[in-house]
Amino acid sequence: MDQINPPHRLLMGPGPINADPRVLRAMSAQLVGQFDPAMTAYMTETMELYRGVLRTANEATVLVDGTSRAGIEAALVSLVEPGQRVLVPVFGRFGLLLTEVAARIGAEVHVIERPWGEVFDVQEIADAVRRVQPHLVAVVHGDTSTTLAQPLAGLGGMCHEHGALLYTDATASLGGNPFETDAWELDAVTAGLQKCLAGPSGTAPVTLSERAVAVLDRRRSIEAGLRDAASPVAAAPIRSNYLDLAMILDYWGPARLNHHTEATTALYGARECARILLEEGVDTAVERHRRHGAAMSAGLLGLGLTLFGDQSHRMANVIGVEIPAGVDGDAVRGRLLADFAIEIGTSFGPLHGRIWRIGTMGYNARRDAVLTTLAALEHALRAEGMAVPAGGGVDAALAAFEAEQ
Amino acid sequence: MDQINPPHRLLMGPGPINADPRVLRAMSAQLVGQFDPAMTAYMTETMELYRGVLRTANEATVLVDGTSRAGIEAALVSLVEPGQRVLVPVFGRFGLLLTEVAARIGAEVHVIERPWGEVFDVQEIADAVRRVQPHLVAVVHGDTSTTLAQPLAGLGGMCHEHGALLYTDATASLGGNPFETDAWELDAVTAGLQKCLAGPSGTAPVTLSERAVAVLDRRRSIEAGLRDAASPVAAAPIRSNYLDLAMILDYWGPARLNHHTEATTALYGARECARILLEEGVDTAVERHRRHGAAMSAGLLGLGLTLFGDQSHRMANVIGVEIPAGVDGDAVRGRLLADFAIEIGTSFGPLHGRIWRIGTMGYNARRDAVLTTLAALEHALRAEGMAVPAGGGVDAALAAFEAEQ
Repeated sequence: MDQINPPHRLLMGPGPINADPRVLRAMSAQLVGQFDPAMTAYMTETMELYRGVLRTANEATVLVDGTSRAGIEAALVSLVEPGQRVLVPVFGRFGLLLTEVAARIGAEVHVIERPWGEVFDVQEIADAVRRVQPHLVAVVHGDTSTTLAQPLAGLGGMCHEHGALLYTDATASLGGNPFETDAWELDAVTAGLQKCLAGPSGTAPVTLSERAVAVLDRRRSIEAGLRDAASPVAAAPIRSNYLDLAMILDYWGPARLNHHTEATTALYGARECARILLEEGVDTAVERHRRHGAAMSAGLLGLGLTLFGDQSHRMANVIGVEIPAGVDGDAVRGRLLADFAIEIGTSFGPLHGRIWRIGTMGYNARRDAVLTTLAALEHALRAEGMAVPAGGGVDAALAAFEAEQ
Repeated sequence: MDQINPPHRLLMGPGPINADPRVLRAMSAQLVGQFDPAMTAYMTETMELYRGVLRTANEATVLVDGTSRAGIEAALVSLVEPGQRVLVPVFGRFGLLLTEVAARIGAEVHVIERPWGEVFDVQEIADAVRRVQPHLVAVVHGDTSTTLAQPLAGLGGMCHEHGALLYTDATASLGGNPFETDAWELDAVTAGLQKCLAGPSGTAPVTLSERAVAVLDRRRSIEAGLRDAASPVAAAPIRSNYLDLAMILDYWGPARLNHHTEATTALYGARECARILLEEGVDTAVERHRRHGAAMSAGLLGLGLTLFGDQSHRMANVIGVEIPAGVDGDAVRGRLLADFAIEIGTSFGPLHGRIWRIGTMGYNARRDAVLTTLAALEHALRAEGMAVPAGGGVDAALAAFEAEQ
């Protein structure tokens, strides 16, 4: 078998997208030992960098060594005991994933739902919290399946009034949309690198408020082989070892208690993702995503396409596009990949075969990526029998870029 | 903050060790989409490569996106229901980890123990299986905490006679010691890349026998958002989503059911680790580990040091060395790191401060790495007050290498 030599792709789907070349360079650095002063310094720097990305002063800001889904399960299994009530407002597939993970770990799951393509009014969630009195509210910030972002401002305080923790999955939105851990009073946030952070999947940044850490403190147990007579004994120990955030905090914190062997290469990548985002500035990056998302959106309309979902609550970095009647959605995607090496996405469940999802995120929130995608899409749509205005997508996107200058 | 730029290190501890530069180059390749034909081909090739590494015909041979500990938990949480009996023969810290993980997932854990530095007679484990009648026997192959490898030949058939599955953690031993999944009738094996496979921590190869897959088939459930009316409903669903091997198999198999987003960069690395190991040949690599381990061992004896544990059952790739009376073990390690940029390890629990652990594995199972380490160790021991024969380590290792030619 040959060496790894992937074909060139321009990844304009809902993520993963192309990694920033600086992240890949960081990930090609040689390893150091797990407790080498250089390694522990990188870990401590990474905590500080993600505080900047997540806009938080939380000491408990670390990485889980797994994909964004590992981060979700780590938060839920660590913060929720079997039998405790969890309220999940669902407005897309990743809300369903939160119900799935919560049910697996033995939570009593309560759901409120919105049709895919809409979000909740914060008051609607507040009413459900009052009714259900959950231990924790788990809500996706940006659900890539529908492209929408749930407003979260005000929700944290309201959960706290009712004694509930507020957890959010920011995988799809972080770095490309306004996101405020502390200002929104979020107790737990998890994310991934493969969207606006311009890295590969496989690492899940996590941050926890003091309120969340207090829950972990009551559930902490030191593992066999490391514990001694003075070690705490938890009444309701966390039912996972690998995803036990109390132990992960002890590994990242001053105690440096051995847990897993930190995934060095993944850490290098995660550190670089955050470093380059803060170098650009979070506000600047968010504005870049807004500008390129708006131009892509104008271009898609310029091609005569219809956008999916409540556009006033759309994430900046991904756009749902209705597949026009009479057009074979998979054939269009196939042409884009075969002729232009461009990938766009489909969706899940009720939206499967109904919409495409087109992303402009991370390293690919770039003018050339937007224009190239629109030019290629024009050709693919025409080849599949749709009458599209010549140059309509590119011209509209160019106009949108120019209008902002 | 600056770019990642780790200091040069020669990692001669119990792992992680330096990655093979070819693995790091593979990991710097640009990403492709999750369901891109190039990506799914890499996944399929990776399954085939790990069948070669693990010496198995098991179709169910995949990667878990997490460190070796994630692989352990995935195997146990997927194969063992709460309340089922698990027998763990413990002869070091990583045996204790198996008891810890099994207890967390609700298993009824039964333990037999050997003093650290010894292994079990297979008959001793057989007797315990007869007595306990476990659903699963979980045993570490090579326990890095003590450097010893448990003989496993014959154990699989004996477990099957009593209706038990046999799971083994081969993280520390795989690729550097004889290991036979099918010939030893192992039902589940998990590993990591950071030892003899010469890659970074963060990916856990897993293989499952048909017997193990049959257990998963009874526990399979399709997740909310993907399931339909025809989807199976499991009586005892797996209590993790992220580490659910039934779902992970459905993602890697022909169904390609979306689960996590495969960690592309980690996959590239894992594929390259296996590719270069098979290019060398597993038997050749095992012999290389034996030869370099033997030379290091001769060199350590040549310095007047005493080896720890039953040397007839030592892993080829890591050696326990008694810290001589009157020598400050951490001071020696500090000098090696500060003056020679060489890392060697300590150990855990009863062996903490009592032994060093010195590895010769993966990319570092090399003549220059062995000789450089012995030369540096000679200086560090002398600086810390031990009378060591001038050149005694290097000369003995050279003689050992020459005797083999």
